[in-house]
Amino acid sequence: MDRVYIFDTTLRDGEQSPGATMNVEEKIIVARQLEKLGVDAIEAGFPISSEGDFEAVRRIAEEVRGCQIVGLARTRSQDIDRAWEALKAGEDPRLHVFIATSDIHLQHKLQKTREQVFEEMQSAVRYCRKLTANVEFSCEDATRTDLDFLVRMAAGAVAAGARVVNIPDTVGYAVPPEMAEIIGRLLREVPGIENVILSVHCHDDLGLAAANSLAGVLAGARQVECTVNGLGERAGNAALEEIAMALRTRGGQLGLSTGIRTEQLYPASRLVRAVTGIVVPPNKAIVGRNAFAHESGIHQDGVLKNKLTYEIMTPESVGLPATKLVMGKHSGRHAFRERMGELGFELSDEQLETAFRRFKALSDKKKEVFDEDLETLIMDEIIQVPRRYRLDYINVTSGSQVMPTASVQLDIDGYQARNAEFGDGPVDASFKAIAKLTGTKSRLVVFSVNAISGGTDAQGEVRVRIEEDGVEVTGVGAHTDIIVASAKAYVDALNKLDYRKKNPPGQLHQDAP
Amino acid sequence: MDRVYIFDTTLRDGEQSPGATMNVEEKIIVARQLEKLGVDAIEAGFPISSEGDFEAVRRIAEEVRGCQIVGLARTRSQDIDRAWEALKAGEDPRLHVFIATSDIHLQHKLQKTREQVFEEMQSAVRYCRKLTANVEFSCEDATRTDLDFLVRMAAGAVAAGARVVNIPDTVGYAVPPEMAEIIGRLLREVPGIENVILSVHCHDDLGLAAANSLAGVLAGARQVECTVNGLGERAGNAALEEIAMALRTRGGQLGLSTGIRTEQLYPASRLVRAVTGIVVPPNKAIVGRNAFAHESGIHQDGVLKNKLTYEIMTPESVGLPATKLVMGKHSGRHAFRERMGELGFELSDEQLETAFRRFKALSDKKKEVFDEDLETLIMDEIIQVPRRYRLDYINVTSGSQVMPTASVQLDIDGYQARNAEFGDGPVDASFKAIAKLTGTKSRLVVFSVNAISGGTDAQGEVRVRIEEDGVEVTGVGAHTDIIVASAKAYVDALNKLDYRKKNPPGQLHQDAP
Repeated sequence: MDRVYIFDTTLRDGEQSPGATMNVEEKIIVARQLEKLGVDAIEAGFPISSEGDFEAVRRIAEEVRGCQIVGLARTRSQDIDRAWEALKAGEDPRLHVFIATSDIHLQHKLQKTREQVFEEMQSAVRYCRKLTANVEFSCEDATRTDLDFLVRMAAGAVAAGARVVNIPDTVGYAVPPEMAEIIGRLLREVPGIENVILSVHCHDDLGLAAANSLAGVLAGARQVECTVNGLGERAGNAALEEIAMALRTRGGQLGLSTGIRTEQLYPASRLVRAVTGIVVPPNKAIVGRNAFAHESGIHQDGVLKNKLTYEIMTPESVGLPATKLVMGKHSGRHAFRERMGELGFELSDEQLETAFRRFKALSDKKKEVFDEDLETLIMDEIIQVPRRYRLDYINVTSGSQVMPTASVQLDIDGYQARNAEFGDGPVDASFKAIAKLTGTKSRLVVFSVNAISGGTDAQGEVRVRIEEDGVEVTGVGAHTDIIVASAKAYVDALNKLDYRKKNPPGQLHQDAP
Repeated sequence: MDRVYIFDTTLRDGEQSPGATMNVEEKIIVARQLEKLGVDAIEAGFPISSEGDFEAVRRIAEEVRGCQIVGLARTRSQDIDRAWEALKAGEDPRLHVFIATSDIHLQHKLQKTREQVFEEMQSAVRYCRKLTANVEFSCEDATRTDLDFLVRMAAGAVAAGARVVNIPDTVGYAVPPEMAEIIGRLLREVPGIENVILSVHCHDDLGLAAANSLAGVLAGARQVECTVNGLGERAGNAALEEIAMALRTRGGQLGLSTGIRTEQLYPASRLVRAVTGIVVPPNKAIVGRNAFAHESGIHQDGVLKNKLTYEIMTPESVGLPATKLVMGKHSGRHAFRERMGELGFELSDEQLETAFRRFKALSDKKKEVFDEDLETLIMDEIIQVPRRYRLDYINVTSGSQVMPTASVQLDIDGYQARNAEFGDGPVDASFKAIAKLTGTKSRLVVFSVNAISGGTDAQGEVRVRIEEDGVEVTGVGAHTDIIVASAKAYVDALNKLDYRKKNPPGQLHQDAP
C-alpha cells in the first residue's frame, strides 16, 4: 500500500481562526500530541509574521522529535532567513515558501506578472536549497490558477530543487473531479515530478475539504495538509481525523495508508478544543460527541447485537474511551499520569507534579473528577501566560427580584485592589467590577459555558472571548461555581490580552495559503 | 441547466440526533422556514413510530403549502396506512417506504433472504400506489449492497411504480467515486430509470456526505436528501447549505441548479440551532460564524479592496446580514415583524403580537436587543410545550468564600411550592432545589451557555440537556441573569420531559435509513 504523508497545520493555518490564538506553551503541548499522533510534519508557524510565531517555531523545532517541523515564508530572503533561524535546531526541518499563482491574486493582490512570479519562486526555492534540501513550495490559490501556468510553476519548482510541491485550494472553491484533474495533469506533464511529493491543501468553504483531499491522493498526491478538528480560516481546513479515518476505513480498497496512530485522534481533538476554546459540534465526523452515539441510550441493545449493521469503525479505533473513566480521591499518581496522556497532555515532570497536587485538592471537594474537570484544571492552572492579574476574592448576590451585585478583589502587579458593581446579571456585575479595577476597555465577543457533563457538581468551564483594538483572545476558567469560573475566565483573557499587547500577532497571515 | 431537487429531512433524520427532539410546534415553525427556503420536499416524520411524529406530519401536511410533504414507512401495510393517514391532507404528499438491501442488514437485522426483501418491496410500493402516485423507495444501506442486487431492487421498484428511487449511504461508508459508480450503473442498467428520479442520501461519518451527494448528482442523480446544519444521527446527514451553495457557486460549470433561495440559508441555520439547541461550530462551512470571517477585524481592509481574492461567495448570498442590526425600544411593529422573518420565524399574528409585547418589555430593560435575545425570547416564551412547572422566584448567593445557596419558588400544576438548597455552585444549588420540588430524578447530560455576543448585558442563553430512562430533552432559558436563565432552562427541560413521558418517542428510528 502507498503511504500518504500527513502534514499538520493546526498551529499555522488552524491558528488563523479568529480567537484560536495560542501562546507558545499551548503550541508546544499541541505539538507534542501531534508527534504522538504520528503526523509526518508539523507546520508550527510563520516565523517572520510575529515574535510569538518565531518563538513557537523555534521552541517546537528544538523540543519535538520524531517528525519534521515546518516554517512558512514568503519568497523574500528575509522571510526565509527568519524561518530558517527558527527551524535550524530541528530534526530535518522544512522550509515552506509560497506565492500566489492565480490571475486574480496576481492582479489584485501582488500586482505582478506571471513571469515575475515564476522568477521569484525559482530564486526563493534556490535560496532555500542553500540552507536545506527539505524545501516545500506552494502555489497559493492553485485551484483558480490557469492550468498551463500551474504546470509551468510546478515544473519550475521541481527544477529549482523543491522536494514537495503543494496545491492549495486556498478559497475552498474546487470540487473533487477538478482536484483529481489538476493532480493528474501535473503528474503527467511536470518533468521530474516522480522525484517529488505532490501535496494538497484544501479549505472547507463548500464542505468539500476532506473529499478534495481524498480526490487528490486518489489521483496521485502523496501529502495531505490538514488540521485537527478542521480548524482554520473561514470554514477551516480539511480535518485530519476525517482524512486519517477515511484512509484507515477504506484504505484497503483505495490502496493507501498513513502513519497516523488513530487511537490518538480523539485525545488530539479534545486537546485542541481545550487549548483553542473552539467547540466541536456533536455531529462532527469521527470526534463529535454523537459520532458513535448509537453506542448509548435506547439503541444500545440493537447495536450490541449487530455491530456491523451501523458501525463502520469502532470508537476504540479513534481513541474514544469505551467507558467513561472517572477519577476520584483514591486515584494515584500513576493513574493520573496515564489519564493525562489519554487526554493528550504531555506534561513535564514538574508540571505533572503541580497538576497532581491541584487534582488532589479538587478531588477533596468533589466526589467524581471528570475529563472535563481535568482539562480545565490543566488549561487553567498549568498552561498559561505570565499573569499580571489574579482573582483573589469574589462574592455575588442575584436572582429574579434583586439587583445583581458583585464584590471583587484582584491582585494587580502584586497589589490588592477591591471594587463592587451592580449589573444586569451576576456575570455582568463581576465583569464590570473587574474591568474597572484593571482599567481595560475590551469588548466581550463570546461568552460560553460548556461541558458540565456528568452532573451539576462538575466544574463549570467558562470561555470568554474578548476583543480590543482588533486583537481577539480567549480566556478560560474553571470552578464548581459558574460565576467564579466566569470571573476567572475573564481575568485569564485580560492576562492574555496584556501578553498579546507585548507580543503583537502577525499582520501577514492574510497572505498565507 | 438541469434541476436538482432538494429533499429536506431535518425533521425526520435530523431529529434522530440525540437531544434534537422537537415538539409539534417547533417542527411546524421549522417546516415553514423550509418552505420559504424553497426545498422541494420536506420529510416531516415517521408517522407510525410515535404519536408525536404522526401529529407533526399531519399538521405540517395540513398547514404547509408550496412543497411536497413526505412521511416515512417500513414496507408493512400498517406503516403505510398510518403514514397516509397523516399525509393525506397535504399538497401532493409523498409516501416514502424503505427496506434494507445489504447482506449485512439482511442477515443480522432482518433475517430475510434477498428474495423475501424483493417481494416485500414490490408489494409495499404497489400498496402505496393504490393511495398515491407519489411514491419513493429507499434501499437502506445501499452503498454496502451487492451492486447486481441493488440494480434488481431498483428495477423492481420502478416496475412496481415508484416515482423516486433513493440510494442511502446509511452508515457513511462510501467515497465519491463509488457513489458515482453506483449511480452510473443504475442509470445504465435499470429499465425505465429515465422515467423516475434517482436520489442520494448521504451520512457524514467520514466527512464525505456533501462530496458523495455531489458525486451522485454529477453522475446523474436528481434528488439530494439532506438536513439543515448537517443535523442527523451520529456524524449527521449531508448539509443542505453545502449542497445548495456548491451548486450555486459551481453550478454553471457543473450544469446543475436547485430551487433553493440561498438568502434563506442563514436564517434556516439559525432557526434550527435555536430550536434544537445543537451548536453550529464557528468553522462550519457556509453558516458558521467564521465562514465569512475575513469580513471583520484586521483583514477587512484587504478584503474590501480585493473581494475576489479570498471570497468565492458573498455573505449576502447566504442571507448573512451585512451589518448586525440591533433592535431597541424605538423599533416598531413593522421592523420587529421583518426581523422575525429574517431570523426564520414565521409566526402567526397572535404569536407575533405576544412576541412584540415581550420584546417591548425587554427593550425597556436593555438598550440593545440582539438577534440572540430575540431568538431566545421566541423559543422561551412563544414556542413551547404545555407547561406543568413554572419558575416564580429565585434568589442565590455565591462566591469564592461562601456556601452557594439558592431559594426557589415554583408553580406546579397551579400550586406554589418553595425550597432552599446549597450546592457546589449557584447552578447546582438551584437545580437541586428544583429537582426536590418537582420530585424528578433526571441526570444532567449537557449544560451550556451561549451567544452572549455584543456585550455583558445581553441575555444569557442557557441550554440544559437532561436524561431520564433513556429519554433526552433539551431545555432553553434566557435572562440577563445567567443563574435565572439556568433555572428557567432546567424548568423548561423538566416540562419537556413531562411532555415526552406522555408522548413517548418512537422506538423504530433505529431501523430508518
